[in-house]
Amino acid sequence: MTAERIVLLGAGRLATHLSRALKAYAPERRIVQIYSPGGHSARRLAESLGGDVQVASSVDELDRTADCYLFAVPDTAIAEVAESLSAHGIGRDALWVHVSGATPLEALSHCHRDAAVLYPLQTFSEGRELDFRKVPLYLEGTTPEAKTAVEALGCELSDVLAWATSEQRQVLHIAAVVACNFSNYLIGRAESLLTSQGLPPKAILPLLDEMNEKLHHLPAVEAQTGPAQRGDKETIRRHQAFLIRSGEAELAALYDELSTAIQRIYGTI
Amino acid sequence: MTAERIVLLGAGRLATHLSRALKAYAPERRIVQIYSPGGHSARRLAESLGGDVQVASSVDELDRTADCYLFAVPDTAIAEVAESLSAHGIGRDALWVHVSGATPLEALSHCHRDAAVLYPLQTFSEGRELDFRKVPLYLEGTTPEAKTAVEALGCELSDVLAWATSEQRQVLHIAAVVACNFSNYLIGRAESLLTSQGLPPKAILPLLDEMNEKLHHLPAVEAQTGPAQRGDKETIRRHQAFLIRSGEAELAALYDELSTAIQRIYGTI
Repeated sequence: MTAERIVLLGAGRLATHLSRALKAYAPERRIVQIYSPGGHSARRLAESLGGDVQVASSVDELDRTADCYLFAVPDTAIAEVAESLSAHGIGRDALWVHVSGATPLEALSHCHRDAAVLYPLQTFSEGRELDFRKVPLYLEGTTPEAKTAVEALGCELSDVLAWATSEQRQVLHIAAVVACNFSNYLIGRAESLLTSQGLPPKAILPLLDEMNEKLHHLPAVEAQTGPAQRGDKETIRRHQAFLIRSGEAELAALYDELSTAIQRIYGTI
Repeated sequence: MTAERIVLLGAGRLATHLSRALKAYAPERRIVQIYSPGGHSARRLAESLGGDVQVASSVDELDRTADCYLFAVPDTAIAEVAESLSAHGIGRDALWVHVSGATPLEALSHCHRDAAVLYPLQTFSEGRELDFRKVPLYLEGTTPEAKTAVEALGCELSDVLAWATSEQRQVLHIAAVVACNFSNYLIGRAESLLTSQGLPPKAILPLLDEMNEKLHHLPAVEAQTGPAQRGDKETIRRHQAFLIRSGEAELAALYDELSTAIQRIYGTI
């Protein structure tokens, strides 16, 4: 089982990053077709890749001879698209791979034998290139053939591979959301507070750089600083009073909740 | 007004970092004495600095001839120590400087003429060196003499100086707490979730590196990714169900609250 001729299902953010990585690092493999409902975003992505990548705008138009169907559609659509392929008898002997952190292997394997997962644990933004070879890929597969094939595909894309069960992958995904998405949200709140008070939003960057650098050397629980960790109740009170005075009631509530949680951990409550 | 002979009040984390930076970058200036109640931590810090730094264990023992009294005591103690110095007639013609983000200049200036603030906007951890010359220092002063003197001191310690009023400094401090302390707390929760599920706690590091790198190029609000930003309610529901099943009710509640807040911002609710 090889995965040389690939149909890419999906044309969103992750599909875009994946297709670029395939082009850059996996010369043996070739995206023969990109699918998106209606075909518009598939066409845009195919054009940006150059070469002779075909476009499919419905499941009927899908290439039936590919070795690999790479599911980069929204999580909620994976099972549905898989069932549709199955009902149309498309790619019966091919490798099916999805790239979702949140979706069990089951979403593919309940209707297809050689199913696998290749989950890139990374945050992908539009218009921002990153070195895919450093992105950790977590793999899972049904049959020995599917496992070998997805491992070979992973090897070509990244230097950092690991196997993970569907449940382990979900835990990684939850940890990623809590650590990265929620932190980014809080940093965004801090940036908009600075802006609203006439201060530069990126004034906190040196601080964030040092926080991130520390995390390479210390468990986060040892890297914690700030008024809540010190149990400085007077500063906490003043900060909350300022936020409420400035019309930031929601941020004040969040400040209270997170400060209380930190104080509980450090016994400073 | 110069600040060549310095009495350092306090011997905690920030006092330690400040004294090392003074030693490394400000050869014209000299810490002549370190004060801590009881003197134990002052003695430890004095010994770690080497040279002939005196120790004071009570306000009575303070050197009366210094040019500068540098307040690095806990925020809640600043006003009290200032009043105590004032009552003892100590340092009447000297520069008084505090280094707190949360404390108004008032805490010194209500009992002393030449008062100033030198606030390093950074997270300082025990046992971790950092390049103080890159730490942004926010300055404030009462008299022209105090301003000139604190600026000269700041110049010797760091390449990044700015003036900020007490209120601006408080906003910077709140932003720092929200962006850094709260993010670090969430990252700690993610690390302990991974550990409790038998996964390596630092598996999320490449993700955090990329998140931090993105913030050098994008406003956080544009760098946001994840299920809440996409409006992927099914993934949010599964993540919460997993957390509750795993006995992480508190983290599940936080997950709900932050996901709702993110969905509100991106209109995906």
